[in-house]
Amino acid sequence: MPFTAVDPDYVARVRDSFSRQRVMQTLGAEITRIEPGEVEIVLPFRADLTQQHGFLHAGIVTTILDSALGYAAYSLMPPGHAVLTVELKINLLAPAKGDRLVAVGRVVRTGRTLTVCQGEGWMERADGHEQVAMMTATMIGLPDRE
Amino acid sequence: MPFTAVDPDYVARVRDSFSRQRVMQTLGAEITRIEPGEVEIVLPFRADLTQQHGFLHAGIVTTILDSALGYAAYSLMPPGHAVLTVELKINLLAPAKGDRLVAVGRVVRTGRTLTVCQGEGWMERADGHEQVAMMTATMIGLPDRE
Amino acid sequence: MPFTAVDPDYVARVRDSFSRQRVMQTLGAEITRIEPGEVEIVLPFRADLTQQHGFLHAGIVTTILDSALGYAAYSLMPPGHAVLTVELKINLLAPAKGDRLVAVGRVVRTGRTLTVCQGEGWMERADGHEQVAMMTATMIGLPDRE
Amino acid sequence: MPFTAVDPDYVARVRDSFSRQRVMQTLGAEITRIEPGEVEIVLPFRADLTQQHGFLHAGIVTTILDSALGYAAYSLMPPGHAVLTVELKINLLAPAKGDRLVAVGRVVRTGRTLTVCQGEGWMERADGHEQVAMMTATMIGLPDRE
Repeated sequence: MPFTAVDPDYVARVRDSFSRQRVMQTLGAEITRIEPGEVEIVLPFRADLTQQHGFLHAGIVTTILDSALGYAAYSLMPPGHAVLTVELKINLLAPAKGDRLVAVGRVVRTGRTLTVCQGEGWMERADGHEQVAMMTATMIGLPDRE
Repeated sequence: MPFTAVDPDYVARVRDSFSRQRVMQTLGAEITRIEPGEVEIVLPFRADLTQQHGFLHAGIVTTILDSALGYAAYSLMPPGHAVLTVELKINLLAPAKGDRLVAVGRVVRTGRTLTVCQGEGWMERADGHEQVAMMTATMIGLPDRE
Repeated sequence: MPFTAVDPDYVARVRDSFSRQRVMQTLGAEITRIEPGEVEIVLPFRADLTQQHGFLHAGIVTTILDSALGYAAYSLMPPGHAVLTVELKINLLAPAKGDRLVAVGRVVRTGRTLTVCQGEGWMERADGHEQVAMMTATMIGLPDRE
Repeated sequence: MPFTAVDPDYVARVRDSFSRQRVMQTLGAEITRIEPGEVEIVLPFRADLTQQHGFLHAGIVTTILDSALGYAAYSLMPPGHAVLTVELKINLLAPAKGDRLVAVGRVVRTGRTLTVCQGEGWMERADGHEQVAMMTATMIGLPDRE
């Protein structure tokens, strides 16, 4: 892991912000790993989050991955900053079917205001796991007005 | 509108598929316009779909836009096909705050198997509306196995 | 045109910067229109810029479009700033064959540091023209150290 | 390397196609490594390929990376196919200054018609190297009409 968190309380700060992302509770996602510049979020499969063929909707996969990449960026920011997504791109590699989605986000490059991240999403099944998505994104850190 | 639907029943076909996207009901989205190559979907704001600052999560905006672009592509496909998202990119232009998100998806180019689409998302408020997102995506049409 | 240039000398400023993009001369590109937030660049077809099937290489199409979008953003910046591409995405819609490539870049949204742009590329031929590419990009304005 | 080339002559086939990408000779690029699903291309720095600050133009970096990713995909295709770029996205991480650009493209997923790739670009300098770009792309394999 080539990154060092400038904020020693980065784990608590990420957890606190994640707990205020109400959509994560609505979808049933949990943050399962927080390291400097790398975050993992897990979403158990739910039939009420599917598209017309019974797979997790591409947008739901995007939602979980976007938060994983965003919190990877946020883990390296100093206190008093907010993180927002500037842009993201996702390639859907396979249908998102299985027991749960595991999304990992990683920082690739930090700058003064922008952080570039990438990540992958896997579906875990009884017989193994399959990569279903690949994402790249640009995050921006802004002084938090809250 | 430069596109013509090869399937005269494209409106019913789009509506039927949309009604089977269970995540749309879970989020509370409605399809409000279906034309050949252009589809509009509306999502009323809900606090349980927000990120840490109280705006609609970027992934939720993506979910609604992805369906709008996907159904724009689907409206031009012949019967017996399924539409899947190959990839999408979204630029978030402003915080998604307001009364409801209006997402419009449009076909830019149709090919033998791939359809390229673009679209925009606006937040409607009491005092007007603001563009909050811009998306481009590649959709694939596959013979439907259902 | 919804944008107003804050710098009354924006046309001269864009032309001057374009003339210092040495790759534009190497490729044979010309800037053919400069308006506030909108720029057009033209590249005559050259066989020595092609890929293996005799079409303009996707990267060359990208190069011309990237400059068109970048200068669209630059036209709205105050003097003393430099523009750099943060990220871009291009969808290739059709083979780039014909007499010349016409690339148009437009500003979608300006922020304090970031400008979001989109654009299209067409190939002009004796019998008409065809859209061959669609691009979206994020540009950043930085105080120019030169 | 998790991929196996179905064509035992994939190295010769990639080299032959690369030699017909006339833009690669025009820019001065060389293909330096060809493995199943992974290709490296090198471009020595040239002042006549720069943007207004003397760095390699983002579009030139894109051109080299696009070919690296495209040939990574092509290396896994059966004989008699052509490869075309459907879409690509590049994040520019740092100014492309240095002695030469090294671009590596890798296949992430192969499907019946589409291949998803990713890659990175580095600038090599006397004192080391720096990652300057990250790309993801979708490639399509079509029966070659030549």
